[in-house]
Amino acid sequence: MTRVLYDLCGIDEGLRFSPYCWRVRYALAHKGLEVETRPWRFTDKAALAFADHDKVPVLVDGETVVTDSYEILRYLDRAYPEAPLLGDDLAEGRARFLRHYAERTLQPAIMRTIIMDLFNAIHPDDRAYFRESREKRFGRTLEEFHSPAKGLSQLDAGLEPLRGRLKEAAFLDGDAPAGADYLVFGCFMWARCVSSADLVSNADPVHAWLERMLDLYAGLGRQAMRITDVEGAYR
Amino acid sequence: MTRVLYDLCGIDEGLRFSPYCWRVRYALAHKGLEVETRPWRFTDKAALAFADHDKVPVLVDGETVVTDSYEILRYLDRAYPEAPLLGDDLAEGRARFLRHYAERTLQPAIMRTIIMDLFNAIHPDDRAYFRESREKRFGRTLEEFHSPAKGLSQLDAGLEPLRGRLKEAAFLDGDAPAGADYLVFGCFMWARCVSSADLVSNADPVHAWLERMLDLYAGLGRQAMRITDVEGAYR
Repeated sequence: MTRVLYDLCGIDEGLRFSPYCWRVRYALAHKGLEVETRPWRFTDKAALAFADHDKVPVLVDGETVVTDSYEILRYLDRAYPEAPLLGDDLAEGRARFLRHYAERTLQPAIMRTIIMDLFNAIHPDDRAYFRESREKRFGRTLEEFHSPAKGLSQLDAGLEPLRGRLKEAAFLDGDAPAGADYLVFGCFMWARCVSSADLVSNADPVHAWLERMLDLYAGLGRQAMRITDVEGAYR
Repeated sequence: MTRVLYDLCGIDEGLRFSPYCWRVRYALAHKGLEVETRPWRFTDKAALAFADHDKVPVLVDGETVVTDSYEILRYLDRAYPEAPLLGDDLAEGRARFLRHYAERTLQPAIMRTIIMDLFNAIHPDDRAYFRESREKRFGRTLEEFHSPAKGLSQLDAGLEPLRGRLKEAAFLDGDAPAGADYLVFGCFMWARCVSSADLVSNADPVHAWLERMLDLYAGLGRQAMRITDVEGAYR
């Protein structure tokens, strides 16, 4: 049985930057599950028709097709109950809060900071789609939305609860990482792959956590291709 | 056996506004435990000497003395395991994140909005202590720190993950409230008791949650004395 993850790629097939796909990559590694990743681009909707979905991640696990990063983590907990990612009941409900924290607090702040780097990292064939869909969402041009000064100040404020938690434990989920760590860390992998911007100062407890997360699973995150590894791609 | 909670009071003995004490009041009600609250003021350090502590909440449960709101919730889960507040393992770790979210994201934003109301609600004998300790913490006068415009805009941004969660569930902890709800709700009770400021618009899913929280346990929060109930106290 081959397990396949459809994974967003950029200007290079090896450049994988989706925060949602990174959640799943880490979740699979957490469970000790092998996966073959298949590069996918924003405009390649036809390739996902089998899943009746138009976005990645899409996980194909034997006969099972699962879409949406959070649902994939839930599926993995059901199918492979050892080493829970989200857990049940109170744990699962609180993981949902952390998902929203990543998506509604951290990601918008990071987006504001790195959006022109992100645009540059996207495959040329995807750029018109990306510009149109995002400009519609933000209600302004990418160039107008782009503001590292505002983004970094928003991020700094948004990181406060994470800082508090990481002052008392090595990982968000305690002594060892689990689902909440991956839900939040995905957006830092996203930024790392497309940009060389420093989002967090060295003295921040969040920085030390990021370093620990990059080292997990034989350097899964640390070894990922970055835009700076793609010859001629980084301005 | 009498169970006693030392509970911060203000200009009136019945005005109880500590966000930390409100967490504990709700946690006790959640467990179905009776409690006698004992009014305490900031400067009455001597009354807590028996607990070797200088802040409320302090819970005396038979022979056991517990300080710090989070530790009290943990104690209640150990001593009365039915209907967990924080839960174990992943659930407990994530509750810690929510505690920091309340204390580092929401409370500073609310503080900025209501601090002059808060100052006015405090017992006259406590005001010099409050002014001195808070001005030292903020590095400026209470009047300089006070900025409802900044506070409300900070709060609006900070509420995003809570909004996301409350769009999908009635309570932070799911279909029924538990520890995460109380950890976060405490700071809204704090604001409600000392101020008439509207922190959240009626259309916000957070507003509907606040109403549900006020109704719990026979209106525990809704029936609490507010500064507007104290004759001549509210400017």
